[in-house]
Amino acid sequence: MKGFGSHMTFNYPSGTRVNKQTVQTKTTRSKGYGNRGATLENDLNVTNKFYVDSNRANIHKKPTPIQIVDVHYPRRSAAVITEAYFKQPSTTDYNGVYKEKYIDFEAKETKQNTRFPLSNIHDHQIEHMSSILHHGGISFFIIRFTTLDETYFVNLPFVLSYWENQNKGGRKSIPYDHIKENGHLIPLKYQTPVDYLSIIDRLFF
Amino acid sequence: MKGFGSHMTFNYPSGTRVNKQTVQTKTTRSKGYGNRGATLENDLNVTNKFYVDSNRANIHKKPTPIQIVDVHYPRRSAAVITEAYFKQPSTTDYNGVYKEKYIDFEAKETKQNTRFPLSNIHDHQIEHMSSILHHGGISFFIIRFTTLDETYFVNLPFVLSYWENQNKGGRKSIPYDHIKENGHLIPLKYQTPVDYLSIIDRLFF
Repeated sequence: MKGFGSHMTFNYPSGTRVNKQTVQTKTTRSKGYGNRGATLENDLNVTNKFYVDSNRANIHKKPTPIQIVDVHYPRRSAAVITEAYFKQPSTTDYNGVYKEKYIDFEAKETKQNTRFPLSNIHDHQIEHMSSILHHGGISFFIIRFTTLDETYFVNLPFVLSYWENQNKGGRKSIPYDHIKENGHLIPLKYQTPVDYLSIIDRLFF
Repeated sequence: MKGFGSHMTFNYPSGTRVNKQTVQTKTTRSKGYGNRGATLENDLNVTNKFYVDSNRANIHKKPTPIQIVDVHYPRRSAAVITEAYFKQPSTTDYNGVYKEKYIDFEAKETKQNTRFPLSNIHDHQIEHMSSILHHGGISFFIIRFTTLDETYFVNLPFVLSYWENQNKGGRKSIPYDHIKENGHLIPLKYQTPVDYLSIIDRLFF
């Protein structure tokens, strides 16, 4: 598989298959009109680049963590990694600073259109994000329902209530209607395809 | 080269050799008494883990950015990256949150004992860190003189003055004496081998 980018389905080193919901965050959306065709990750890269370039915020995607096993050093050319594995991230994908506030979030896509399955989220991510709140940062999810082409800003405390309820044996997903009602639809703009700072402005400043 | 960790010397994809100063941040220090033997990166990992575990701060090292070219999918086991290259980082190595403040810094080792060569620092890092200051974050360098076994907290504005002076044709390094005088020696503690938050407490809170 040549010409490989950052979108992929893969297994973690344990050899266990990544569940379907997680993998969906990595698939490429089918092309269509308007914004369709771009993954949430691509849209966020464009948005964050515009924020940085226009001096509005400094927020970046972290590199994908890789476990390197073997490297070759051909003469007079770049070192080649010849054996490496994907590691499961221990934190979130995006962080940075906006108006003196620490920003830390995770972006998820789902093909479901009636609910967001909590299996998309890992224990250690919830732990990490709870810690961010404790230290006075702003932490949230950006959730895209790809078939509806709707992207929501979902604040961490709202997700935490469903997470804790799940741990007590409650439902394993957040209904779409609840996200529509309690989350915040993120406006799609040309220069900022996922203009989440407009929501942060409204909620926190 | 098997059993490969995160410490290495390498070439960037352009094929140009990384200069010696940069490479020094990746070498392993010779083992000896006390703290000697641990790289600055290892010491920072231990320190940051303690900060996170004790709920004092949430600061992490970002993964090394890798350009993936080829991946194989053996049946029923983890995906294997079989061709990849190191990319030059576009930001800094460490960021996170402490007492509601955004923290963003770069760690550098040098074997020099009379000066810190500015060639250790890249243009885009200076740009990135200046942007952090603009948005109200705290940005700085942690510089270790390995042969002296001294580690300093060096605030960004101090480095910027040397950087700008260099761009006007001035000296290409910061004298050790100036760092000793204007930087802040970071205390070595058992649980926090590079207790930089104690300096931040003193300077910012």
